[in-house]
Amino acid sequence: MSRIDGRTPEQLRPVTIQRGWSKHAEGSVLISFGDTKVFCTASVTEGVPRWRKGSGEGWVTAEYSMLPRATNTRGDRESVRGKIGGRTHEISRLIGRSLRAVIDYKALGENTIVLDCDVLQADGGTRTAAITGAYVALADAVAWAQQKKLVRAGRKPLTGTVAAVSVGIVDGVPLLDLCYEEDVRADTDMNVVCTGDGRFVEVQGTAEAEPFDRKELNALLDLATVGCTDLGTLQLEALGRTEPTN
Amino acid sequence: MSRIDGRTPEQLRPVTIQRGWSKHAEGSVLISFGDTKVFCTASVTEGVPRWRKGSGEGWVTAEYSMLPRATNTRGDRESVRGKIGGRTHEISRLIGRSLRAVIDYKALGENTIVLDCDVLQADGGTRTAAITGAYVALADAVAWAQQKKLVRAGRKPLTGTVAAVSVGIVDGVPLLDLCYEEDVRADTDMNVVCTGDGRFVEVQGTAEAEPFDRKELNALLDLATVGCTDLGTLQLEALGRTEPTN
Amino acid sequence: MSRIDGRTPEQLRPVTIQRGWSKHAEGSVLISFGDTKVFCTASVTEGVPRWRKGSGEGWVTAEYSMLPRATNTRGDRESVRGKIGGRTHEISRLIGRSLRAVIDYKALGENTIVLDCDVLQADGGTRTAAITGAYVALADAVAWAQQKKLVRAGRKPLTGTVAAVSVGIVDGVPLLDLCYEEDVRADTDMNVVCTGDGRFVEVQGTAEAEPFDRKELNALLDLATVGCTDLGTLQLEALGRTEPTN
Amino acid sequence: MSRIDGRTPEQLRPVTIQRGWSKHAEGSVLISFGDTKVFCTASVTEGVPRWRKGSGEGWVTAEYSMLPRATNTRGDRESVRGKIGGRTHEISRLIGRSLRAVIDYKALGENTIVLDCDVLQADGGTRTAAITGAYVALADAVAWAQQKKLVRAGRKPLTGTVAAVSVGIVDGVPLLDLCYEEDVRADTDMNVVCTGDGRFVEVQGTAEAEPFDRKELNALLDLATVGCTDLGTLQLEALGRTEPTN
Amino acid sequence: MSRIDGRTPEQLRPVTIQRGWSKHAEGSVLISFGDTKVFCTASVTEGVPRWRKGSGEGWVTAEYSMLPRATNTRGDRESVRGKIGGRTHEISRLIGRSLRAVIDYKALGENTIVLDCDVLQADGGTRTAAITGAYVALADAVAWAQQKKLVRAGRKPLTGTVAAVSVGIVDGVPLLDLCYEEDVRADTDMNVVCTGDGRFVEVQGTAEAEPFDRKELNALLDLATVGCTDLGTLQLEALGRTEPTN
Amino acid sequence: MSRIDGRTPEQLRPVTIQRGWSKHAEGSVLISFGDTKVFCTASVTEGVPRWRKGSGEGWVTAEYSMLPRATNTRGDRESVRGKIGGRTHEISRLIGRSLRAVIDYKALGENTIVLDCDVLQADGGTRTAAITGAYVALADAVAWAQQKKLVRAGRKPLTGTVAAVSVGIVDGVPLLDLCYEEDVRADTDMNVVCTGDGRFVEVQGTAEAEPFDRKELNALLDLATVGCTDLGTLQLEALGRTEPTN
Repeated sequence: MSRIDGRTPEQLRPVTIQRGWSKHAEGSVLISFGDTKVFCTASVTEGVPRWRKGSGEGWVTAEYSMLPRATNTRGDRESVRGKIGGRTHEISRLIGRSLRAVIDYKALGENTIVLDCDVLQADGGTRTAAITGAYVALADAVAWAQQKKLVRAGRKPLTGTVAAVSVGIVDGVPLLDLCYEEDVRADTDMNVVCTGDGRFVEVQGTAEAEPFDRKELNALLDLATVGCTDLGTLQLEALGRTEPTN
Repeated sequence: MSRIDGRTPEQLRPVTIQRGWSKHAEGSVLISFGDTKVFCTASVTEGVPRWRKGSGEGWVTAEYSMLPRATNTRGDRESVRGKIGGRTHEISRLIGRSLRAVIDYKALGENTIVLDCDVLQADGGTRTAAITGAYVALADAVAWAQQKKLVRAGRKPLTGTVAAVSVGIVDGVPLLDLCYEEDVRADTDMNVVCTGDGRFVEVQGTAEAEPFDRKELNALLDLATVGCTDLGTLQLEALGRTEPTN
Repeated sequence: MSRIDGRTPEQLRPVTIQRGWSKHAEGSVLISFGDTKVFCTASVTEGVPRWRKGSGEGWVTAEYSMLPRATNTRGDRESVRGKIGGRTHEISRLIGRSLRAVIDYKALGENTIVLDCDVLQADGGTRTAAITGAYVALADAVAWAQQKKLVRAGRKPLTGTVAAVSVGIVDGVPLLDLCYEEDVRADTDMNVVCTGDGRFVEVQGTAEAEPFDRKELNALLDLATVGCTDLGTLQLEALGRTEPTN
Repeated sequence: MSRIDGRTPEQLRPVTIQRGWSKHAEGSVLISFGDTKVFCTASVTEGVPRWRKGSGEGWVTAEYSMLPRATNTRGDRESVRGKIGGRTHEISRLIGRSLRAVIDYKALGENTIVLDCDVLQADGGTRTAAITGAYVALADAVAWAQQKKLVRAGRKPLTGTVAAVSVGIVDGVPLLDLCYEEDVRADTDMNVVCTGDGRFVEVQGTAEAEPFDRKELNALLDLATVGCTDLGTLQLEALGRTEPTN
Repeated sequence: MSRIDGRTPEQLRPVTIQRGWSKHAEGSVLISFGDTKVFCTASVTEGVPRWRKGSGEGWVTAEYSMLPRATNTRGDRESVRGKIGGRTHEISRLIGRSLRAVIDYKALGENTIVLDCDVLQADGGTRTAAITGAYVALADAVAWAQQKKLVRAGRKPLTGTVAAVSVGIVDGVPLLDLCYEEDVRADTDMNVVCTGDGRFVEVQGTAEAEPFDRKELNALLDLATVGCTDLGTLQLEALGRTEPTN
Repeated sequence: MSRIDGRTPEQLRPVTIQRGWSKHAEGSVLISFGDTKVFCTASVTEGVPRWRKGSGEGWVTAEYSMLPRATNTRGDRESVRGKIGGRTHEISRLIGRSLRAVIDYKALGENTIVLDCDVLQADGGTRTAAITGAYVALADAVAWAQQKKLVRAGRKPLTGTVAAVSVGIVDGVPLLDLCYEEDVRADTDMNVVCTGDGRFVEVQGTAEAEPFDRKELNALLDLATVGCTDLGTLQLEALGRTEPTN
């Protein structure tokens, strides 16, 4: 059985990672997972939120948003509606947690990095593309902070790579990196965030129709682990590095 | 090693489920998981949201909230701040999805059931207690709707039981049903929602400090499956039933 | 003529006052006036709002809210609507003013006590039950503050008891402590807040249909005074005290 | 003892009522109680809010607001803050209830009248001036609706006059119609709304410092009744009428 | 051809400027351009917004609003809707910029002046009347600040007069100071803000139907320049001055 | 004198217009004016807003926004702050008015086109780039609607081209198309919107420091007219057309 776009079940969509897409941001990436395009910027500021002052530790946070016409039908702007929806909140928090998993707060020192992930075009997997791209922007921002001596010499704020991918069961078959059309038809939908060494940062699986059993869960986790490892390789290539920490 | 409150790693806290706690709601439950107390009501109304009208199918949704002094330190009311926080949004959505997993929309017909889960006292696991209690309130509300003939004779809107429990790794040991103090110290925190037959509805695991490996994940899933099965038995006992569907 | 629930016109509904209903709050009470149940917590924090800093005086304030299904028909959550309604504002302010009437700010010192009154079930008289219950929670919180030495030795922040009751004219007969069904049918509706010595803190009377004359007003004030005195006795009993100040 | 502005305790401030202050509104009045100036407009629209449609009955509602510099110190605009404060809500509701007390909904038919009361300058008693002025604007709006045949021939939507005045106890002396300086110093503050025949529509008394006893309450009610009667006479004079109904 | 109200094309509506309309504000003016009436107050406070502290320079800002029934049909209050509309924002910013054009921040010192322009009755040209009136209120507020020694002796914070007027092309004829009926019918609508010496502070022209050519633009600018000069003369007359600076 | 980036005073920055940048939108353009990059999408929906239903006429509106890190320093998201700022409102309205100037509503029929202009990178002139790019997206959307028969055969909803450019006086020299650094230093700042035939749709000039005289105004208008004509040529080239209407 081949997929809508001809891929095999365990194949990622074509991934492109363009760095330096913004002249202002300390790190910036335009990432695409097939037709899903997310613009990720990393903004560094000295200092930390009030509740963390004096701790000697830094902070990393994220905000996710979709442009109104990123999707097939135009959605309302959350700024115009005057409030952020639950889905946006949820994904912003997920991205922030995922990236903080590879940050050594002490090494970062009292600096804050904000990741903005704005979806320019959506075709499934926007949150996983956002995490994967944001990591690259974050790595550039950390390097910038090191160069500007905001981070003390010898300190390595990044402890590894982190990437994310979606997996799901469509017509009984576990698939990697669902496009929108597959996502809509999936019985089970799971987003997995892994570090480059194959360990889990986040596992979020949801039964859309039927509950899933342990065997299905295992098959999905197997697929996701391989997908994240592949993405980790692409991230390092984009950064021109051979090892994740800096 | 014994736990803070003397439990074994695979032991639930004492669970109590009191039905009929509201004279107004079609279903109502005061559930406690140890010192965590959640008041769950199920409200039935004829009709469905606009986007579902004419489908012949029903709808189930949920809202979660904490009273300001449910926690050790008083928090601001979200109504006073004028917006709902990301955590509240996320949990409300989780509860709704979890309960919809055991609903046959067609059998329910064009009726809406809203679950309100208000945390009166928090000591860890408020979302899992909410899901577990809300199921019982939902079952009573469905029975009410059947009796009032809002649901057609012979139809069984409930397809099974659903319960939830938290698991986590504290000091290297996988533990079931974390209390607040354990939750704060956990390296990995996972909430698992299962149906009574041991299949998964939601799996949400987060590495708080270190990423977790596949072996740890498996140990947590094992614990959670047993915990949910036990909760399913308690739910049926509370309902005075021997089989989940009605 | 006897009332819907068999009471005489000058009879209160059964009142229960359970202290210590929360393990976190410095004072907490579950109060019921018949089927009206309000959960009141008192939270003590050191310090006062900015406008009062350096005055040497404390502050007491209150927030009132109804759970969405406290009433016969489910109401929207104010947090979800994103703003607090006029009725909620009005009652929160009333509770705060009522309790401040028995507080000696200087004796309290620069501490703040917030009373949260959440209606779990409504059957008329929610604001009067809230005031009456909040007083008991406040008394416990003040005692806690004294014990923790937040209040200076020998100081008595509480200057007396305060309780509240509703009165109204139904079918020409003045009645004490209206339940919901009576409240709906009342021509005139009045909420009266009194100190234990029978003096008035608040008098709020509203003609629902016909304006009321001075004679009717007098009859209602007579009833309310007696009702508040009875409630004051119940408050002291609940607190296990013989005199109001502490 | 004479008052700050030389009045006797039972004397109103100079009251002026100018009708026709807006070329657009169906009724409009600039009322002053001494230095308190409120601009009241009455807007008539055919139809009623959704919840009242088909009832054959009309509706009257009110909105109160203060210009930011109506007071001695500039206050924030509620539109800029993005929400209405509790005090504004409370007064808007009071004005609406007060005017509805003299409206025969059936005679009004399915028409809505909105009273806008905007305080241009505040010197105490803004809500009582607002009610008193809004009545006159309402009377003009009702007359307009009768003339335009929105109200059926022979129907008299207005059932009487309604006016309001503040009273309070300052240095032990009950005073009528407090100016701001007196209001600040008052131990007890009461707003009373009466119909022209001396019956009560609203009684709202608050102990600012010491609770008040029944004797003091009686003295205040006596003063207020006389004050409202005097205001009723001034309202009819302004309208050029000898009897309140139309 | 004569205009709706009999004016010639280059004639202003009758303009009245009443100073001292508020007992509280440091400067206050009721200005009318025909039937358009705007109440302008200027509030002086010591200190400046945070971003300007320590600069030695002052700040001037403005807020514009319409009473709900200033127009022919009642509009919703922005405070009730919970947000300010684009038009209100735009005009508030325009008024602020216009007045800042004649302020020497250094001479003003670290003081803030807020201009509130509330439209009591609208008949076209509310923003231009607001600017013209606000200038007079500002001049009075500056004089007050000088007298109270908030401004250092010898300093002249006002550098000139500023006034505004609308112009437009109706049926091919350029007209000065449009009333509402003309404004609705205009093909091109322009608001021009000038200093007393005929220079431009703001030029905002909009083609309502057809784009306008350079010749039409020139004709409108000619008219506006004359109108603003006339208004400058009226402003000085109202202030009882012969020269703009103080 | 040459400019910061070596341009002559009357020279535009390099302009690029890439069509088809979104797979979902009916029209989409990535436009750059030097380092200013704006992503413009045009979304077509059948039907019009309620107030226009049954008119047989269409509607065109626009929303402008900046990504948080489009600028040198990260700005707060308006969705997170919960309200749209005055500047955003003002620019959204300007874009909408500008594009409506070249639309024949009757020819468009009861269809709505929404232009979303999201600034990805800002370096001055974001609103003028947005208008210029949105026109091209609009033209593509209109062509799509014609092809899909939403627009009746033979109807030409577009009546011409529209483009916008900024002009300003820096160090006494009138300059075309200011970059950010020039904009900050400009004494006078003007945005001009013209149709392809050199007529004005909007003229918005603001004195930043000193008021400007008529001669300066004329010089700016001369520059802007030429700039807009050049942009009109580039728009037609991008669309591959020789005449603006379609």
